[in-house]
Amino acid sequence: MNTAQFYHAGCPVCLGAEQMVADAIDHSRYQVEVVHLGEQPDRIATAEATGVKSVPALVLNGQVFHINFGAAIADLK
Amino acid sequence: MNTAQFYHAGCPVCLGAEQMVADAIDHSRYQVEVVHLGEQPDRIATAEATGVKSVPALVLNGQVFHINFGAAIADLK
Repeated sequence: MNTAQFYHAGCPVCLGAEQMVADAIDHSRYQVEVVHLGEQPDRIATAEATGVKSVPALVLNGQVFHINFGAAIADLK
Repeated sequence: MNTAQFYHAGCPVCLGAEQMVADAIDHSRYQVEVVHLGEQPDRIATAEATGVKSVPALVLNGQVFHINFGAAIADLK
């Protein structure tokens, strides 16, 4: 089984959009885990060791992809 | 059907890693298209209009996610 971890920190603006990515992953081929580093700080060390430099980040079989969504100005009004 | 476009520009170091993301998408739920903007410059205007600011970028149902992979130093030696 392939593994995917989606690390985030609960950003209220981005959370829905971030989860779109985790949801789009093929769950029949990937065991997907969503990790909120704000609520699970004990996972930070492992995330760092994997190479996670910022959140949100998607890790596929140990390969880190940093995702920049950014907040739409419209969402901030 | 959900749609996903994966935009890239053929970076030789990152290409394999970038395609990991496109491959991980659930193809039973998402119609996935990989677009090489270097080879298909006629697609740049559409990508820009969607909100793509940099490549690689993953677009899920019109929502843009910019992906930063970066090159591993080891790959450059």
